[in-house]
Amino acid sequence: MKYGIALFPSKKIQDLVNSYRKRYDPNYALIPPHVTLKTAFDASADDIVTIANELRITAQDSNPIKISIKKVSSFSPVNNVIYLKVEPNDDLLDLHSKLHKGSLRLEPEYSFVPHITLGQKLSDDEHSDVLGSIKMLDVQHEEVVDRFHLLYQLENGSWTVYETFLLGKDNE
Amino acid sequence: MKYGIALFPSKKIQDLVNSYRKRYDPNYALIPPHVTLKTAFDASADDIVTIANELRITAQDSNPIKISIKKVSSFSPVNNVIYLKVEPNDDLLDLHSKLHKGSLRLEPEYSFVPHITLGQKLSDDEHSDVLGSIKMLDVQHEEVVDRFHLLYQLENGSWTVYETFLLGKDNE
Repeated sequence: MKYGIALFPSKKIQDLVNSYRKRYDPNYALIPPHVTLKTAFDASADDIVTIANELRITAQDSNPIKISIKKVSSFSPVNNVIYLKVEPNDDLLDLHSKLHKGSLRLEPEYSFVPHITLGQKLSDDEHSDVLGSIKMLDVQHEEVVDRFHLLYQLENGSWTVYETFLLGKDNE
Repeated sequence: MKYGIALFPSKKIQDLVNSYRKRYDPNYALIPPHVTLKTAFDASADDIVTIANELRITAQDSNPIKISIKKVSSFSPVNNVIYLKVEPNDDLLDLHSKLHKGSLRLEPEYSFVPHITLGQKLSDDEHSDVLGSIKMLDVQHEEVVDRFHLLYQLENGSWTVYETFLLGKDNE
């Protein structure tokens, strides 16, 4: 079974992001707007019990994450993906690093560029049009997210939450 | 903000149910296949912190739920909803009852008929055609679900998981 780890920004940000994803992201219906912390990985039902136990400890030992958004950016020319850039900070990088250790030891596919996708799989023309207009948006935003989620993928490509993990000692 | 409480059956059942929902359920893209434990209710961000705390205690004090499916049924003539009937059992009824007490005290809209929707908002003709063919399926299935989820609704109608609650003392 395929699993992944993500955090969801506030409803306000999810609603804003969905207003773009609806038109520009073919994955719009498969998962809510999110920051991927760990891309899809395979695990058995047994593995996942162990992994979930580790994630509970990881979450307790980690801090809530400040999500600071200052601009829209793109992975072009590597990928025509337009996204809200999430400014890296120590708590976020620390959590990402812990999610790639222990049972979760797997090389990350790319270096970690925290982001919330607005659009993807765009043609070159569409990409430059959309990026041009979205870049004019004022997207300054800051919030604190106190949880992350382990999800699994169904056959239709959509993701169901397996478990939520609360960040920080206060949530023990 | 609108919240709801649901449990997700196993991936196997979700995949089976989605193969019908894809054609017959306009809510297909809004939420994974689920058993509704508490229909949509309004709560503020402050309320929900209290509610989540109560749900953590409720979950610890409740048992994992046996999901026993024996047949396909329909709410017709009240609603043209076709569903997998989940046989009521004490643990499930007990959990449902706890989710309508305390901060969550709200009259349930209908009497509780636990189910997993396969199709809804069907025309009368479509309803009888689809029900006729689905009824021939052998849907005997039994499994135990050890968690439930509190979700909130985005502006586009889709649901994001706020938190997962693990059922039973072992998960404390």
